[in-house]
Amino acid sequence: MAEVLIVGSMALDTIETPFGRGEDIVGGAGVYSAIAASFFAPVNLIGVVGDDYPQESLDFLADRGISLDGVVVVPGGRTFRWAGRYQYDMSSAETLDTQLGVFADFDPRVPESYHHSRYVFLANILPSVQLAVIEQIGDGCFVIADTMNFWIERARDDLYKVLERVDLMLLNDSEARQLTGQPNLARAAEEILKMGPRYVVIKKGEYGATLVSEAGGSFTLPCYPLQDVRDPTGAGDSFAGGFIGYLAWAGQCGDPDLRQATAIGTVMASRCVESFGLDTLAATTTRDIYDRYFALRRMVEFQELPEGL
Amino acid sequence: MAEVLIVGSMALDTIETPFGRGEDIVGGAGVYSAIAASFFAPVNLIGVVGDDYPQESLDFLADRGISLDGVVVVPGGRTFRWAGRYQYDMSSAETLDTQLGVFADFDPRVPESYHHSRYVFLANILPSVQLAVIEQIGDGCFVIADTMNFWIERARDDLYKVLERVDLMLLNDSEARQLTGQPNLARAAEEILKMGPRYVVIKKGEYGATLVSEAGGSFTLPCYPLQDVRDPTGAGDSFAGGFIGYLAWAGQCGDPDLRQATAIGTVMASRCVESFGLDTLAATTTRDIYDRYFALRRMVEFQELPEGL
Repeated sequence: MAEVLIVGSMALDTIETPFGRGEDIVGGAGVYSAIAASFFAPVNLIGVVGDDYPQESLDFLADRGISLDGVVVVPGGRTFRWAGRYQYDMSSAETLDTQLGVFADFDPRVPESYHHSRYVFLANILPSVQLAVIEQIGDGCFVIADTMNFWIERARDDLYKVLERVDLMLLNDSEARQLTGQPNLARAAEEILKMGPRYVVIKKGEYGATLVSEAGGSFTLPCYPLQDVRDPTGAGDSFAGGFIGYLAWAGQCGDPDLRQATAIGTVMASRCVESFGLDTLAATTTRDIYDRYFALRRMVEFQELPEGL
Repeated sequence: MAEVLIVGSMALDTIETPFGRGEDIVGGAGVYSAIAASFFAPVNLIGVVGDDYPQESLDFLADRGISLDGVVVVPGGRTFRWAGRYQYDMSSAETLDTQLGVFADFDPRVPESYHHSRYVFLANILPSVQLAVIEQIGDGCFVIADTMNFWIERARDDLYKVLERVDLMLLNDSEARQLTGQPNLARAAEEILKMGPRYVVIKKGEYGATLVSEAGGSFTLPCYPLQDVRDPTGAGDSFAGGFIGYLAWAGQCGDPDLRQATAIGTVMASRCVESFGLDTLAATTTRDIYDRYFALRRMVEFQELPEGL
C-alpha cells in the first residue's frame, strides 16, 4: 500500500478550556496528523523531540504502524512546548506560552527508508524547512502543506516558493484572507490557486471545510455536529492526516478522491475534538469512521429540484 | 396552488458598502421575502408604508403576483427607513440610523382574501405582533418566524410564546447562541427545538445554513459561492421567502421538502446579494434557479466510502 510521509511538530501541550485543563499532553501537528493518517496507510514520521518526551508515546506511535526512523531524539534536549487557552466558544486559541526547545533547530532529513512515500503532508513549520523537505523527496509525490498567520507575516517569500511546489495548500479562512488580502473566500481561494497549487482546502473551524480545485470545482462540507467539543487542539492536523492517509489508501488523487478525503478529514477532526489530547482520535474504530462518513453524506443530501417551476 | 402569507417590514434603505452607496432603496424584510417567494407561489403580503413609498414599487410587487390587499398606505405617513454600513468583509451591518415612521404602529390585520394562505412567514418584527398574526390565521398552517437580537434581549417572554406556536424558527448563529446561552450550535439548535418548534434553521452568513429537525436530523448547506457580493442586505429574508415559497409550491413539508426548501432559500439569498437592493433578486430566471440549485447539489456531492478500510 502507498505510504504517507508526515513532517511536523511533536509537542507537549498545556491546554485550558472551559471544560478542563491538561498539562504536558502529547500533541503537535506531526503527531495528530500521523495518528489520523495511520488509520488508512503506513505512516513515516519526521520530527524532533528532547529526551523528556515520554517513551510510551513513541511506543504508542510505533504500535500504530507509524515509522519513527525520521524522529530525532536529542539527548539532553527539551521537547517543544505550547500552552494555550480556549474561551467558551472554542473558536480560537490564545497562545499563553511557546517554548521551542529542540524544535528551534528542526532540520528534517528524509531517511532512505522513507523515500518511497508518495503522499506527503508538510504540517505547519517554517516555510524554508518545508522547502528543504520538498527538495529531498523529489517528484511524483502528492504534497500537501499547511501554514499559519505567523509565516504569512514573517516568511511570505518562502511561503510563495512552497506554494509553487505543492499540490494542495491547506489553511484556515483567516489565513486565506491574510495571504491574499481578499475578504471574499471564493476570490481568496482563486488567488491561492494562481500562486501554484492545483488545490486549496480552506478550513473554517466549526463551519467545515471547502476544497477548491484549479479546474473550477468547489466542494464544501460542514463539520460533523458534536454537542461536546472538549478541546479543538489538533483538529486541523487530524483533518490533514485523515485527508492524506485516505488518498494513500485510495492510491489516487482525482476530484472524487479529494472529496472523499475531505470527508475523511472531517471525520477524523470530529474524533479529535471530543477529548483533550489524542485519546478519542486514537481510539477511533473502523466502525466510527464508516458511521460518521455515512452521517456526513446524509447531512448534505437533498433531492433534485422537480421540473415545472 | 397553495399561497404564501408574508408579514414584515417594507422599508427604504440607505446602504453603504465598500462597493458603493444606495439611498432610499426599496427594501425591508417583507419585501425581500415576498419577492423571493413570488417565484414559486402566489404571495399575500401584509405591511405598512407611508405615502412617500414609491407607487412604482407597489406596482412592481403587484405585477409579480404579490397581493397588496394587506398593505396599508398611511396618508401623510412616513415609510420605515433604515441606514446601515458594511465593512470590507461584508459579514455584518452596522446600523447608522433607524426611523420607524408608520412601522412603529404596525398592527397587521389579515384580510379575508388571505385567509386561505397555508404557508406563512413572519419576518423579524415585534414578537407580540407576530403572535397577533398567529391568532388571526388559525390552525393548519406551516408557520416560519424570524427574529433578531433586539427582541431576544427586550421581548424574550413574547418570543417564547412565538416559539411555542410556530413550526420553524429561523435565526442566525449569534441569535441562536444569545437565545439559548449555548455557544455550541448543535446544542443551541436542540434547545430551541425544546422551546416549541419542530424545526429550526440557523443562518450562518457566508457559511451557509443548517436545518435541524425534532426527529434528530441535521442538514447543512454552504452558501452558493460568489466572487462579487455587493450588498448582503435582505439575504436572510430572501432565504426565508424562497424557503416558504418552495414549500407552498411543493404543497408539502416533509424532511425532503424542507431540505429542498433550504437549497432554494440558499439560491435566492445568493441572487439577492449580487446587487444593491432588489434588482438581481427580482431579475432571477427559472434557469438561474435550476442552475444554482444544481451547482449546490454538485458542491456537496461525494461518493460512498469504499469497503475494506
